Amino acid sequence: KHRSRNAVGASSLACVDLAQCGVDMTPASCSAHVLSTGPGMPSGPAALHSCPATKPSMLNVHLVPHTHDDVGWLKTVDQYYHGDRNNIQHAGVQYILDSVIDQLQKDPARRFIYVETAFFYRWWRQQSQNTRRIVTQLVNEGRLEFINGGWCMSDEATTHYSAVIDQMTLGLRFLNDTFGECGRPRVAWHIDPFGHAREHASIFAQMGYDGFFFGRLDYQDKARRMKTKEMEMLWRASESLTPPLADLFTGVLPNGYNPPEGFCWDQSCNDAPIRDDPDLEDYNVDEIVQRFLNAAFYKTNHIIMTMGSDFQYENANLWYKNMDKLIKYVNALQAKGSKVNVLYSTPSCYLQELNLANLTWPLKTDDFFPYADDAHDFWTGYFTSRPALKLYERLSNSRLQTCNQLEVLGGPKSTSGPFGEGDSDTMSKAMGVAQHHDAVSGTEKQHVAYDYARRLATGWAHCEVLVRNSLAVLSGSESPRVFCENLNISVCPLTESSQKVLYFSMNVYNPLGRTVSWPVRLPVNGSLYSVTDTKGKTVDSQVVPLSKSTQQMRRNRGYAKGELVFQVEAPPLGYTTYIISILKDEPPASSPKPTATRSIQNKVHAAESRQPSGAYIFRPNSSDPFVINKTAEIQIVTVSSTVQEVTQWFSPWVSQVVRLYEGHRELELEWTVGPVPIADGLGKEVITRLDTDIESSDYFYTDSNGREVLERRKDYRPTWDLKQTEPIAGNYYPINSRAYIKDDKHQLTVVTDRSQGVSSIYNGSLEIMLHRRLLYDDFRGVGEPLSEPGEFFDGLVARGRLLLTLTPPNMAADVHRPLAQGMVLQPLLSFQDGTPLANTKLEVCRGSFSGLQDALPPAVHLLTLSQWDKDSVLIRLEHQYQAKESKTHSQPITVNLQKLFSTLEVLGASEMSLGANQWKEDMNRLQWNTGNPSPWEVTLNPMEIRTFLLQLRQL
Amino acid sequence: KHRSRNAVGASSLACVDLAQCGVDMTPASCSAHVLSTGPGMPSGPAALHSCPATKPSMLNVHLVPHTHDDVGWLKTVDQYYHGDRNNIQHAGVQYILDSVIDQLQKDPARRFIYVETAFFYRWWRQQSQNTRRIVTQLVNEGRLEFINGGWCMSDEATTHYSAVIDQMTLGLRFLNDTFGECGRPRVAWHIDPFGHAREHASIFAQMGYDGFFFGRLDYQDKARRMKTKEMEMLWRASESLTPPLADLFTGVLPNGYNPPEGFCWDQSCNDAPIRDDPDLEDYNVDEIVQRFLNAAFYKTNHIIMTMGSDFQYENANLWYKNMDKLIKYVNALQAKGSKVNVLYSTPSCYLQELNLANLTWPLKTDDFFPYADDAHDFWTGYFTSRPALKLYERLSNSRLQTCNQLEVLGGPKSTSGPFGEGDSDTMSKAMGVAQHHDAVSGTEKQHVAYDYARRLATGWAHCEVLVRNSLAVLSGSESPRVFCENLNISVCPLTESSQKVLYFSMNVYNPLGRTVSWPVRLPVNGSLYSVTDTKGKTVDSQVVPLSKSTQQMRRNRGYAKGELVFQVEAPPLGYTTYIISILKDEPPASSPKPTATRSIQNKVHAAESRQPSGAYIFRPNSSDPFVINKTAEIQIVTVSSTVQEVTQWFSPWVSQVVRLYEGHRELELEWTVGPVPIADGLGKEVITRLDTDIESSDYFYTDSNGREVLERRKDYRPTWDLKQTEPIAGNYYPINSRAYIKDDKHQLTVVTDRSQGVSSIYNGSLEIMLHRRLLYDDFRGVGEPLSEPGEFFDGLVARGRLLLTLTPPNMAADVHRPLAQGMVLQPLLSFQDGTPLANTKLEVCRGSFSGLQDALPPAVHLLTLSQWDKDSVLIRLEHQYQAKESKTHSQPITVNLQKLFSTLEVLGASEMSLGANQWKEDMNRLQWNTGNPSPWEVTLNPMEIRTFLLQLRQL
Repeated sequence: KHRSRNAVGASSLACVDLAQCGVDMTPASCSAHVLSTGPGMPSGPAALHSCPATKPSMLNVHLVPHTHDDVGWLKTVDQYYHGDRNNIQHAGVQYILDSVIDQLQKDPARRFIYVETAFFYRWWRQQSQNTRRIVTQLVNEGRLEFINGGWCMSDEATTHYSAVIDQMTLGLRFLNDTFGECGRPRVAWHIDPFGHAREHASIFAQMGYDGFFFGRLDYQDKARRMKTKEMEMLWRASESLTPPLADLFTGVLPNGYNPPEGFCWDQSCNDAPIRDDPDLEDYNVDEIVQRFLNAAFYKTNHIIMTMGSDFQYENANLWYKNMDKLIKYVNALQAKGSKVNVLYSTPSCYLQELNLANLTWPLKTDDFFPYADDAHDFWTGYFTSRPALKLYERLSNSRLQTCNQLEVLGGPKSTSGPFGEGDSDTMSKAMGVAQHHDAVSGTEKQHVAYDYARRLATGWAHCEVLVRNSLAVLSGSESPRVFCENLNISVCPLTESSQKVLYFSMNVYNPLGRTVSWPVRLPVNGSLYSVTDTKGKTVDSQVVPLSKSTQQMRRNRGYAKGELVFQVEAPPLGYTTYIISILKDEPPASSPKPTATRSIQNKVHAAESRQPSGAYIFRPNSSDPFVINKTAEIQIVTVSSTVQEVTQWFSPWVSQVVRLYEGHRELELEWTVGPVPIADGLGKEVITRLDTDIESSDYFYTDSNGREVLERRKDYRPTWDLKQTEPIAGNYYPINSRAYIKDDKHQLTVVTDRSQGVSSIYNGSLEIMLHRRLLYDDFRGVGEPLSEPGEFFDGLVARGRLLLTLTPPNMAADVHRPLAQGMVLQPLLSFQDGTPLANTKLEVCRGSFSGLQDALPPAVHLLTLSQWDKDSVLIRLEHQYQAKESKTHSQPITVNLQKLFSTLEVLGASEMSLGANQWKEDMNRLQWNTGNPSPWEVTLNPMEIRTFLLQLRQL
Repeated sequence: KHRSRNAVGASSLACVDLAQCGVDMTPASCSAHVLSTGPGMPSGPAALHSCPATKPSMLNVHLVPHTHDDVGWLKTVDQYYHGDRNNIQHAGVQYILDSVIDQLQKDPARRFIYVETAFFYRWWRQQSQNTRRIVTQLVNEGRLEFINGGWCMSDEATTHYSAVIDQMTLGLRFLNDTFGECGRPRVAWHIDPFGHAREHASIFAQMGYDGFFFGRLDYQDKARRMKTKEMEMLWRASESLTPPLADLFTGVLPNGYNPPEGFCWDQSCNDAPIRDDPDLEDYNVDEIVQRFLNAAFYKTNHIIMTMGSDFQYENANLWYKNMDKLIKYVNALQAKGSKVNVLYSTPSCYLQELNLANLTWPLKTDDFFPYADDAHDFWTGYFTSRPALKLYERLSNSRLQTCNQLEVLGGPKSTSGPFGEGDSDTMSKAMGVAQHHDAVSGTEKQHVAYDYARRLATGWAHCEVLVRNSLAVLSGSESPRVFCENLNISVCPLTESSQKVLYFSMNVYNPLGRTVSWPVRLPVNGSLYSVTDTKGKTVDSQVVPLSKSTQQMRRNRGYAKGELVFQVEAPPLGYTTYIISILKDEPPASSPKPTATRSIQNKVHAAESRQPSGAYIFRPNSSDPFVINKTAEIQIVTVSSTVQEVTQWFSPWVSQVVRLYEGHRELELEWTVGPVPIADGLGKEVITRLDTDIESSDYFYTDSNGREVLERRKDYRPTWDLKQTEPIAGNYYPINSRAYIKDDKHQLTVVTDRSQGVSSIYNGSLEIMLHRRLLYDDFRGVGEPLSEPGEFFDGLVARGRLLLTLTPPNMAADVHRPLAQGMVLQPLLSFQDGTPLANTKLEVCRGSFSGLQDALPPAVHLLTLSQWDKDSVLIRLEHQYQAKESKTHSQPITVNLQKLFSTLEVLGASEMSLGANQWKEDMNRLQWNTGNPSPWEVTLNPMEIRTFLLQLRQL
């Protein structure tokens, strides 16, 4: 079997390498953790070599020293790293790691876990060889243990599975490259996210995690679980994947992620230190020990105590000095008959003890949304908070995938070619931090939101160079190529000025594994254009007048008077080129006059209460939303053969365009909302509500991280007898790509362009929250009202698209699955202007290209294609249908890896865990069905993702 | 010459001992500091071996990492040590020392200074042998340097020199015992006290300090000195001692004691860290370096920068990591021609460079009182704040001296005798912390003031046992002995109940070196008593009715109806006994009815303004104080032959008793003030004003720490052209024991029982502030209005005494010097009740005793007599007259050490520095006149204190 030398294969050798570095290791071999997975486990050590000894006859209290380091929230990720702007929040991660490493060295019993690789990576790069050696030894001995290990601790409601897998891979790869097997996290750890998605659990299971711990769940659910001792459970996280493939042991932490009350010894806390000098005042050992022994406990004779919190351990001495004393004095009572044993531990060591207890755990099959921490405190607002950032993050994912693919397809010249040095790494890292649970969630401060956006823009700037290089290699054209960032507000200097050039060309790159058809709208100033494809065939096109709302949004950044509309078709994993030339450069006709009509309604929730709506919380004033306007002004534009569209104005700040493109079955609603007026002193949360005749009753359906779909029911939770206290906010759920309602005959599916909050409050109705502007902070720490400034501080205008399809229920998935993937991985347009020189070159260049030998089968999605190292690429193939949802596609499907690429020869393939930090055959968490007929044939079952490292050679 | 093996003699061997402990030292010998003192110095190394190299051709910036650790302020000393109650203030000294020691080990260039031995002592006791070894090495290498080194950083306005010398000795001895010569502080460091006393400078000089740095001085003075480059000077701190005996190099620190603005890298600061990773956001090295180079500088090519502040360095990594970078990047510019050289340094290394610069420095002969930090912000309120605490501290000093003396006189049985285990150590330490500049100053929070008082009470409880043991040894009587703590409010259960016993005896211990006569007032319920001395001679006595104000103050704690008044006479450094028996047990006559009269006035300043009066600040509403009452109710009691007294009532909360005792020339004013009413919404500051015909013009005189007297002049400062902005508060000065006004013929001297604020606003007038109760905090950090609760939270009642003498000016010192020493070291009364058994025993016991062979000459004061170790005692002899103030006594005077004690044989004597941490002959700070005719003959010049270690044997 062929393996890359520099990749995960290095893992099992890591400890040997280390020994060669002169680290004195005890024992001489790696004390790596190997977790047993229960009675059915075939072989291997039964316990973590490096876990501390426990006492079977006693209650063992596992103290888990940890810090929770947000990858941006009140400060930017780098401000947190440096400890800058401590006036906003005292937090400096560089010092946390400095201090913890110092303190761990003082006593081999001390342990620490670290979670956020985005920070650890920054720190590691600045360390001396000597410090690195010390840290490596601490890791090998299990004294410093990486937990979770993604680049960040992702949000679960508003992230797309594609970006989540990428950010996890980024973090896990750094740990694997740096520490090998001893640095591989065994436990997933989402202690802060505000609700938990089933798809996240499924991803963690497929990545080889042995367990998952979190801190936040609905207060009613928690109260019940505490009572019934169901705080720990087995989560069956997929309806499609064969158990135990997506089964994940899941534990709810007893104190969120904080220490028990009175035992917080961080510099940020005010709890009394242990004062054990009898010669000084206020000796308090006896009182503290007694208070500790009174804490409440769990199901087994083990309990986990999270000893830490946000950005704690900057001065780790405070924590360890007092915990040392706590352990000493509590355990000293064992000599007097006490049955309590306190020890430094880690989540994986705790998990091991639970596993060895061999108990039966309750099963969980739904998810943990929505999250409420009190009767009127539903954290369902953030599903929609900062809609523009949410869209930008989603588009950036599309661009990153394109960038990754073109790095592979274009070969080494992609990163160093005619346009300079480019890379996908900057964008990967920017996307890595953007997945954080206070990033794409929209729950950060405004200046931090700007920082995330800036990082994505910088990442794309690096990718642009790569893409230019790669397209130059593939097309043979090195003439300048521009990207138009602002097409959604019809701004693109090149196309706007096109009456001055003879023509321009447009490259359409399609990152999907199959041909796509896509409507394109380009800002222009002529009234008639010729559009031809690479075969010289004319493509039907029209110029439509620019809408008033687009004119308002673009302000003075562009001056196009119309939009040239036509449809493009791009090959799988490749591009095609269109030549556009102006035929009439007189101005396009203006729009017809608006007429008033009563019809579709847009509504708004007003927010103002004791617990106000804010970045996190949704709490409308009333169960009935206010109708913005009962009549809408309507402009109808009919464009023959390409698009039909209607513009509706509900108010000066809410409008919508309804479009139907030729050859497409979906209806497009392009909404434009803002600046949301607040002069009336009310915050507003704008929804669009689709009322139909569908007999959906109380049921509706939402996707989980853009993948599997969960059934929702109004005023109901599958797990417990819900006492509904918020009739609207308590029924909101997050969607990442789609929601639907259905009855026996019809299904209305809405595919969205970003994550949003959604609900169905009435039979046949589906409402989607589009935008929010609020006047008060909601007391969850962000300390700012969510009121995004617009360009001139008059309030942000957001624009987006919903794609509606109405189908029989059993046909719906066949439509919405590809539709949603097309929305997630959009074609990338780039332009070259039509100077005669360019013209000449274009003629001799390759106008279209596909990286695949054939389009992938409809059920197969190319989730990942990215350069891993010089000789190998990472590929993830995904079955994109759930079991049973499609008659045609919900079947196992086989792909031949060797016959995949048109320009790359696959020399070898090794399957990996989903996180790409383990060979699949080395995963001992679960038993695997092995033995494919040919090593090249990959069979995908519904909802399965398989991850391979391929050794390639450019043909 | 005889020397104690365990005392300072060990110093010069310390490094050898250390080498024996296995510490690898480079160089092998001690790198102890030896400071040159200028061109006149006879021999010895010219530079500190361990000081960092500087660059002569550059501006050398000495970064001095330091922490300022208040020995109590907002929290108690132990709360600060532990880091308890961080909700009040984040501060934990144990962690500071942990962290600094860790960080110093990381780089030999790093340095730190530590100041407060009360904290270091607590920490050291808890350290492992290994840590102690590391710390000792750091000290030997000069990387950890002790500065100041007293038990605390004493207040300068409200402390008595006797207690200051004791607390310094306590701290310096711990350092000497622990670290030897390498641990001896070279520099005095009073960075926070609010004004600076000349006597403190004199003490520091006599203790061998080479320099003194402080932070606070009058804002006008500072502005002038900045301009004229007189921030550094030579302070000639005594008018009596021959220069350079009391000369002290003194420097004003440039930023108080804080770092330059923008360069505070403590966890408690929000300044930007140095961000030197160009791959992360916000790289700011260039900007920081530029900002640093723009700082303003001093006279030489050296500047000191205090890098630290209150309770900083709890996480020293933050500081050092950023300073490392600052040094690296600033010094890197030298390669490009920069002439700035930054280095880690210490005050003594900086001082050495100033000394080597061989410049001429301005001379300073007055002091730095009062301190104002702005035009209306005079820190003159704290001279009087918490008058009851100030008295209790002063009484505790008297008791500690008595305790120390009786430990010596009683021999080993004092500490372990018939009454159990006693010690003077607890009281020494309690007094040590009470000298802190937020302790006796009255500027701490209320709960902290209670803690200081509690510590003193605990200290006295330990001393009580010692005193009982010692008096049992000396007197031969082991019958129980009680002390009456509340005689000032006429409460003493034993004497009150004396009608039920035949008689009781009273022991009067006199800690002074000469016989004293002292009026005693005992609460009684009979109307006639017999008082006899040890020779059986009857002493004149009367029972006077208990005053109404005393009845109010004692509430229900006692039930005496009268006070038995008589005068006692006690021998030098010894005791005598009086037998008191009741003759008539009918109740004493009640007081005569009050009559109204217009006469003496008590006044009050009302405080309320934008900068209000508070614990620190005095800022009255008006220049004219409000008269409390123009008429006073008067009760006259005439007691033949013992005392004459008049009680005056100015209001229900202000009264005064005027007394004249038989045989005494001084007039006693016993004032009682409180609870100060505040229902009118005005804080009040009560003064008593003595108006006379003395033509004092604008001049008046105040003592410095109870020793030398300084001339004061209204609206004038000797050093600069004062712009007076506060006509009252700006003319207040602290007194510790006395103040006077005079003209050619008369001098009115007031001797006080505690530290107070005083001024003379009018010709012939002297006003003394007695008590303060205020409604607002004064914004200097304490965060509480100074409104001391009384016993039932109705406001504290304070009572005190002023002794007034009117003499010709040239006779005044002969009266006020012994009068003040008698007030400072008061006789200690103890009682044994008169059961027949006790009676029998008393007969066979020694009723009187003197520890001295003869009374000391009038000019000589026995400042210190305390057990040093098993075989030796520490003695300090003081000339208590200033040069020229007394015709009779302002002359050199000789004492023979060998002929001093009556019961102790002096086997050897070695003279030491005032701080008792160096042999006098080893002091190389200054050249000494040596060669007394006999080693036993000690000559004292005016205001000289000499300190000896005596080897003794009980006779």
